Amino acid sequence: MSNPLRVAIAGLGTVGAGTVSLLTKHRDLIARRAGRNVDIVAVSARNSEKDRGFSLNAYDWYDDPVAMVKEADIDLVAELVGGEEGVAKEVCKAAITVGRHVVTANKALMAMHGDALASEAEAVGVSLNYEAAIAGGIPIVKALREGLSGNQINRVYGILNGTCNYILTEMRENRISYEAVLAEAQKLGYAEADPSADVDGVDEAHKLALLASLTFGTRVDFAGVYTEGIRRISIEDIDYADEFGYRVKLLGSARMTENGLEQRVFPCMVSKDKAIANVDDAYNAVVVHGDFVDDTMYEGRGAGAGPTASAVVADIVDVARGFSVPTFGVPVADLINVESIPIERHWGACYIRLMVRDEPGVIADITAVFREEEISIESMLQRARSQTEAVPIVLTTHACEEAAMRRTLKRIGALDSVVEQPTMIRIETLN
Amino acid sequence: MSNPLRVAIAGLGTVGAGTVSLLTKHRDLIARRAGRNVDIVAVSARNSEKDRGFSLNAYDWYDDPVAMVKEADIDLVAELVGGEEGVAKEVCKAAITVGRHVVTANKALMAMHGDALASEAEAVGVSLNYEAAIAGGIPIVKALREGLSGNQINRVYGILNGTCNYILTEMRENRISYEAVLAEAQKLGYAEADPSADVDGVDEAHKLALLASLTFGTRVDFAGVYTEGIRRISIEDIDYADEFGYRVKLLGSARMTENGLEQRVFPCMVSKDKAIANVDDAYNAVVVHGDFVDDTMYEGRGAGAGPTASAVVADIVDVARGFSVPTFGVPVADLINVESIPIERHWGACYIRLMVRDEPGVIADITAVFREEEISIESMLQRARSQTEAVPIVLTTHACEEAAMRRTLKRIGALDSVVEQPTMIRIETLN
Repeated sequence: MSNPLRVAIAGLGTVGAGTVSLLTKHRDLIARRAGRNVDIVAVSARNSEKDRGFSLNAYDWYDDPVAMVKEADIDLVAELVGGEEGVAKEVCKAAITVGRHVVTANKALMAMHGDALASEAEAVGVSLNYEAAIAGGIPIVKALREGLSGNQINRVYGILNGTCNYILTEMRENRISYEAVLAEAQKLGYAEADPSADVDGVDEAHKLALLASLTFGTRVDFAGVYTEGIRRISIEDIDYADEFGYRVKLLGSARMTENGLEQRVFPCMVSKDKAIANVDDAYNAVVVHGDFVDDTMYEGRGAGAGPTASAVVADIVDVARGFSVPTFGVPVADLINVESIPIERHWGACYIRLMVRDEPGVIADITAVFREEEISIESMLQRARSQTEAVPIVLTTHACEEAAMRRTLKRIGALDSVVEQPTMIRIETLN
Repeated sequence: MSNPLRVAIAGLGTVGAGTVSLLTKHRDLIARRAGRNVDIVAVSARNSEKDRGFSLNAYDWYDDPVAMVKEADIDLVAELVGGEEGVAKEVCKAAITVGRHVVTANKALMAMHGDALASEAEAVGVSLNYEAAIAGGIPIVKALREGLSGNQINRVYGILNGTCNYILTEMRENRISYEAVLAEAQKLGYAEADPSADVDGVDEAHKLALLASLTFGTRVDFAGVYTEGIRRISIEDIDYADEFGYRVKLLGSARMTENGLEQRVFPCMVSKDKAIANVDDAYNAVVVHGDFVDDTMYEGRGAGAGPTASAVVADIVDVARGFSVPTFGVPVADLINVESIPIERHWGACYIRLMVRDEPGVIADITAVFREEEISIESMLQRARSQTEAVPIVLTTHACEEAAMRRTLKRIGALDSVVEQPTMIRIETLN
């Protein structure tokens, strides 16, 4: 058996603590699998006094994680601090500079600075692994970089944020409003006090930008991801979706086309027949379509101490086994720049809900706008009638260009008989 | 860029031809990913004249694949001949002896001789990879050996035979008899002329034995797999399953318990709520429950030229990248022997269909046997009535031991009023 792999852990929050307990609990198992011991030798966190359920006595303590990676006698640092700038970034940069391997769970950092860090890691000859940054415990980075390395892949999509998927599932199953589910999720620790990174789709966009780079061999282009969150989804829309045969999911989807790279994160309607439509609660799933392998799907928990630690440790074991793959599957110099396709050129069907005054001619006015914008309506539903209150009209369209849809909604929103801004949810065909 | 990896292909059937076309079509892509060219230099098959849709002129031809691996200047052989003995085995042994890496799609060979071959490969220091042997295009070997290497896993199960899953799906969706679907599948090339390896569960048992070894670090124990196929499944049973909220699937399941290793392949009823119950057609899926990662599921096509070639090439790219993991995740010397639990000690609920003469006392006679064997009935269904013909009685039981169930069925089968041998299908809870 070779020398032990000496590991430092930067950050002892949920993920850091989970990683320490995994490496401790499965020390022997991992040694058998890795062919050598994996030893934690140093740790760093904000507070050395906090009770984390295990003793830190066996490890060298550092108040400053950057000093730790520079001074401690280590082979690898697990950066589990989080955040796209600041300490997390400094830890990774310092570690690479002094020739230490880096394993990180940090999607924000990788989405913003992954190319630059990967480039430095390559120059030095160390690994920069981030399995835990995308879809938690699902080994999707490994599947894309290695398991599907024989395929040209034209599309990858998935449910990449467990918090949003949990909220949408609860809304549908228990008919609880977005606000109420979010409050409950915050109480249970499934959602942050400031939930915006999750519910506005930013977290999923970070992950999607990484997935796209891995899949297409493109430079990470987080700025090119069109991002919409789930705040405006109502139980009403979820119910109508059900009636039309759909589930509402926050999907991250990337596609390589002749015209450029499409990267989108938005809530959308997905046919209930599709396996991904039935991935509920805090689960994540990723679908990859390769030209030889056809469709493959990967499903599991997207977050939490256990699943994330599982991914962090898999990355560590790869290093212990002496295995290194370029961060994005090919050397950074080989990553290509591809133009992003703006959302205005998105092409697809839509669901639209309008609140209107129930008066003669209203449907004629609305449908006239659709006709003039050359968008054809697939189905329309108006059930409730009321002399006094606004009633909903719900319709689905055939595929059209987003720019035309936006013009249409603007014009319809301006009609006197339409009393609220229209709600639009895209329908994804996923074939 | 390093020297090219020189590859020989043994066998040019569906999988061999698929592998050649993948390596040819994606030559540049693979070179970028692997960091070096992957060159086919030699091929061997039974017939050099056959039109395979591509020219073999660029490769050295060998009539004898064993001579090829001994004589050709290669780094790796892809053994795509098939069969658990004979040429396939000789090719692998010869290749390892002369220090060539081996990639194989051969589940029968690996299930019967995987330990011995892995031991030889380890001694010589070459890789023995077999991603294509289990669940076709799904990178499940990689997930178990690497992606989930931080987990202790207590259970793995899956749909591992596309032909059986296709047959069961067609029977349910189109209400076609087993015999008719099989004939159609044979016409379409989805099933072999002699279908027994598929429909009797042997193919799935080979794969399960490999999965179990990978998952638990045990020696491959194909003889310890209890195996039942799908020949006796009728449309009637599939319909009743639907009524009770189940789908019938041929499941391979392995579980490590205090009493030993459980390895089972049998058709069973699975709640429609479970994702795996909705994996249809020729798709395969594997569910892995790890102690840190929790449940993960992997789904994709289980067979065919493209998916299998995708897996073969992923294994080749790993070798090109200089990566080697022990064949079963840990060195062969570390694999443990664990006693198999015989099927008589299986514990679970059952579905039972009896054909009985509709006469007074028949239900009392039947239920008396259940009571005496201490098996409690969960639900019972008798709808049809007839003075002249046998009518079905269908029931489900609570969990019981298989030995008691077998005694019960034997006694009930011997009753005068029961006119056919009872049909029993196990119900799997999968929690």
